Amino acid sequence: MLEYEQFEEKTIERKEIYRGAIIYVALDEVQLPDGNRAKRELVFHPGGVGIIAFDNQDRLLLVKQFRKPLEKVILEIPAGKIDPGEREMPEQTAIRELEEETGYRAEKLQHVISMYLSPGFANERMHIYHATNLKQVAEPLAQDEDETLELYALTLAEAKQAIADQLICDAKTIYAIQYWELLIKGK
Amino acid sequence: MLEYEQFEEKTIERKEIYRGAIIYVALDEVQLPDGNRAKRELVFHPGGVGIIAFDNQDRLLLVKQFRKPLEKVILEIPAGKIDPGEREMPEQTAIRELEEETGYRAEKLQHVISMYLSPGFANERMHIYHATNLKQVAEPLAQDEDETLELYALTLAEAKQAIADQLICDAKTIYAIQYWELLIKGK
Repeated sequence: MLEYEQFEEKTIERKEIYRGAIIYVALDEVQLPDGNRAKRELVFHPGGVGIIAFDNQDRLLLVKQFRKPLEKVILEIPAGKIDPGEREMPEQTAIRELEEETGYRAEKLQHVISMYLSPGFANERMHIYHATNLKQVAEPLAQDEDETLELYALTLAEAKQAIADQLICDAKTIYAIQYWELLIKGK
Repeated sequence: MLEYEQFEEKTIERKEIYRGAIIYVALDEVQLPDGNRAKRELVFHPGGVGIIAFDNQDRLLLVKQFRKPLEKVILEIPAGKIDPGEREMPEQTAIRELEEETGYRAEKLQHVISMYLSPGFANERMHIYHATNLKQVAEPLAQDEDETLELYALTLAEAKQAIADQLICDAKTIYAIQYWELLIKGK
């Protein structure tokens, strides 16, 4: 078994490429364990949350939206970026995003898993929560100004068909549907 | 139900930020469906493959490696970026990466799913394959020069413990373990 030092890539120099509103891009020159050098292109991202929530007919809540990187409209679980003031408590992001995107407020929130989405080049971490005891809010928090969303509620069979149709095609939502299936089968 | 036009964000202008060896970063100015404008920070990535493969004791093959964006050593299923010549056939990438990273050659490869990892800002798509009929190769393809890897084989219980310990902490590997669990429970 190798020790940490036999894997570690030490930063020789970090060059800032881009400081955006959401992402920060850098190019690192690193020293490899064998002494050689290499370049690492890195994207830093504040991280996000995804929420697994069901309506009163046990259908999964999903939102339809346009995703510019894909130039496609897709169906995802409610989700959002962690705002600067929420860094220490992503569960606040989860409660806020669920209400903004679906109009439901959750009384209970259970942390399911946290996962890095693209560890090869990005540090983005996605925290997944299972929200229960939902109540429809009379005057929910407003959606983000630059987002157009449409709310859906799908049965497991419908969700699996949406995966087959590639309307559901992102990692967090596919994770959520597997989680749901394992929940039904009894983990 | 909203029509595509009611979601679409039209590109007004694309500004190139960075053309790297692996990623391409751009800033789009878009016109929203309501006529307003917004900025979209985008990362374009060639995509990758992840391989679900088991040794002759039905243990999942995993590789340990240092991930610079996380400054951490983590355990992942064998995976890699699609090379320029492989764009149309990611299964070639899968066979190549499996051999480079584990020393096993697969006689059979089944496409499991393709998923976008971070559709909010990146177009990276991960193709997951289930490799079977593995043969250990006497002289396997060499690993990438700038990669230090260590091979592991874990039982499902060990893999779930590694998730709890956050040694396994990335989306594709967590997906693979759920897939494995669903396979055992009989989909």
